[in-house]
Amino acid sequence: MIKREKAEIIAVGTELLLGQITNTNASWLSERLAELGLNVFYHSVVGDNLHRVCETFAHAHERSDLVIVTGGLGPTDDDLTREAFSEMSSLKMFHHEPTMVKLEDFFRKQKSIMTENNKKQALVFETAEVLDNSEGTAPGLIVEYEGTTWVFLPGVPREMKSLAEEHVFSYLERTGGRDELIRSLVLRFSGVGESKLETELKDLITEQSNPTVAPLVAKDGVTIRITAKAETAAEADELNEKMKSKVLSRVGQYFYGMNDETLASTILSMLKEKKLTIASAESLTGGMFADELISIPGASSVCLGGVVSYARSAKERLLGVPKELIDEHGTVSEACATAMAKNVKELLGGDIGISFTGVAGPGSAEGKPAGTVFIGLATSDEVHAHQFSLHGGRHSIRSQSVNKGLELIYKLLKS
Amino acid sequence: MIKREKAEIIAVGTELLLGQITNTNASWLSERLAELGLNVFYHSVVGDNLHRVCETFAHAHERSDLVIVTGGLGPTDDDLTREAFSEMSSLKMFHHEPTMVKLEDFFRKQKSIMTENNKKQALVFETAEVLDNSEGTAPGLIVEYEGTTWVFLPGVPREMKSLAEEHVFSYLERTGGRDELIRSLVLRFSGVGESKLETELKDLITEQSNPTVAPLVAKDGVTIRITAKAETAAEADELNEKMKSKVLSRVGQYFYGMNDETLASTILSMLKEKKLTIASAESLTGGMFADELISIPGASSVCLGGVVSYARSAKERLLGVPKELIDEHGTVSEACATAMAKNVKELLGGDIGISFTGVAGPGSAEGKPAGTVFIGLATSDEVHAHQFSLHGGRHSIRSQSVNKGLELIYKLLKS
Repeated sequence: MIKREKAEIIAVGTELLLGQITNTNASWLSERLAELGLNVFYHSVVGDNLHRVCETFAHAHERSDLVIVTGGLGPTDDDLTREAFSEMSSLKMFHHEPTMVKLEDFFRKQKSIMTENNKKQALVFETAEVLDNSEGTAPGLIVEYEGTTWVFLPGVPREMKSLAEEHVFSYLERTGGRDELIRSLVLRFSGVGESKLETELKDLITEQSNPTVAPLVAKDGVTIRITAKAETAAEADELNEKMKSKVLSRVGQYFYGMNDETLASTILSMLKEKKLTIASAESLTGGMFADELISIPGASSVCLGGVVSYARSAKERLLGVPKELIDEHGTVSEACATAMAKNVKELLGGDIGISFTGVAGPGSAEGKPAGTVFIGLATSDEVHAHQFSLHGGRHSIRSQSVNKGLELIYKLLKS
Repeated sequence: MIKREKAEIIAVGTELLLGQITNTNASWLSERLAELGLNVFYHSVVGDNLHRVCETFAHAHERSDLVIVTGGLGPTDDDLTREAFSEMSSLKMFHHEPTMVKLEDFFRKQKSIMTENNKKQALVFETAEVLDNSEGTAPGLIVEYEGTTWVFLPGVPREMKSLAEEHVFSYLERTGGRDELIRSLVLRFSGVGESKLETELKDLITEQSNPTVAPLVAKDGVTIRITAKAETAAEADELNEKMKSKVLSRVGQYFYGMNDETLASTILSMLKEKKLTIASAESLTGGMFADELISIPGASSVCLGGVVSYARSAKERLLGVPKELIDEHGTVSEACATAMAKNVKELLGGDIGISFTGVAGPGSAEGKPAGTVFIGLATSDEVHAHQFSLHGGRHSIRSQSVNKGLELIYKLLKS
């Protein structure tokens, strides 16, 4: 068993240094390596320059015992990863026969001619484990060299991920010894700000012991990530569970879900459980609320749909909001929100109706400033509307509105 | 004037190495530095460990003449950027009086007590230029040290960006000499695949001269980025314009817009110009199409809204699609798509009606596989529907459908 204590990730590609793309490969790999108990100490990005790639490799070889390189394996002259490692290590390269066959086959199917450059993709190091790339042409490579494990993966995230999932993680597990691993869980909260949550959990957050407690702002609320280190997954999970109980004993009233759950998916589950259906009438949110629910598989049994009544005429023609009501109160009003919620509920025969009307900006409308938003809620028992004054740009006001709507529905269903 | 030829960006923060966040700061800064004609040769990420941060700084000091550091300026013990640079440089630190006043004021307003730790945020190097942080408490710092310009910025993207925009770029412009700068433009295409576009432009892409031509897949089609280097912006722009003409002479028939334009914003402009209104009836896309248009400021004059008829009952009750039609053909059918488009157009009194019905998956529906999608189009002249067989997961099928709809509307308006 090889003990790997210091990992680093190197991305090769000038497009990263020009800011044309972001190094999402590094964060994805890091998260997965942490789960395997491997400590990543450095990320580096270096451009398509042989000298600088060589130097970066040499530096990594000195300080790390696991180096994962993404990018630079393609067919063009700019793809220098193989050349740089060959120069640094003096390992010989040869054309890998199965890859050559695959390449020839690929070009035959594409009905195009394979240039000399393309053969480069079949070059592998003499001692390498060659990893078949099911998503592309260039294979991945694993080379054990002078006590350091070198892993070479393509830069295209889809190819990189599939090679890592299919070959690399299992190789590292199979060959590596380790002292401890890292496990995380995420708690999700709604209806509470980050600062309030931080104040309530201040001592837990700043203690920074094992597990650590870290707040983060998510799209639909605030999250707390709890991360434990331990020798086994069971021990780490136990540490996390204990901390979870501690956190929930203080702020459990705002908690709605775990890990990948969202406010929308939680609401959908609650609607299904209670056998309730929902219909929406959206003005400034323009379909975003319905989309939030319908994007989840299985939404069809509880989400009937609704109306996007963006223009005034749509509010009158589709939703039957009386012309006189709009003349008197305007479309951005409690009265209009209430009528929209009530009417969409009735039109669709749903149990809950929700409506959104307001000023998304930029600029004011009907004499009301951007950020003025009314959300109407209609059930079989009652109809009412909530007024909000939101801040931010057009996109932010619209998505905050959707989120406020989700919070209102969640509260309604929880009560 | 200081000639800065080698820039690098260092992010400090263990959360990046755990993959909890992605280093978007590096790509944002890189793109802006490229525009200023500064060559970024390296990105690095290092965790909250004094020894490793020191080493990373020393290495950067050796090889670069501009180093931008993000993160590690906060109040906690984990924030080590100041300590590391002080250790490496032997520059003394002192408490910056205006920042102390700001901090005290901040805590007074928050009605909380300022701990000793918090005073750390006011520590600055003796020769530093202190940059006021309008979005947070920790100021940015610029230090000219042994021929290298060191810039220290907070890790929170909002604070980092505002400090960079307000202070750093102008400082670099003011004090730096340069040989050439980089300018880019982006051409956007629809209704054509990446491989087809690449084939048509192959020689331009692989020439990789000045300007470079790089294809990228965007959310709503394919883009080509043209990037030129020159001594002046005017020269670079001229190179880009020439290449643009060359590209468009070959694939101009698929071109719809430039830079930040999207297919949706292009359509919105065309609708306004032609004084046409549009209404949508969405089943599997669940409001996503309407949202795509309404997310753009000024949509209200042409986008009337529509119906999200997700449930079968909504198609009947809201859109008046005859029960018999659905019984005979199903909701995922040309007949249903046609009726939806026609009826939503009439209901809202619009010039164009568009409808989406299909199987988003996972799994088939009405005996049709996931990815079966019908898009209906109704104008005053005619009504018809297009059938698509899309591949991918639920989210992908839904957003591909929206995009196909945008392409159809674009074609209709262009003809």
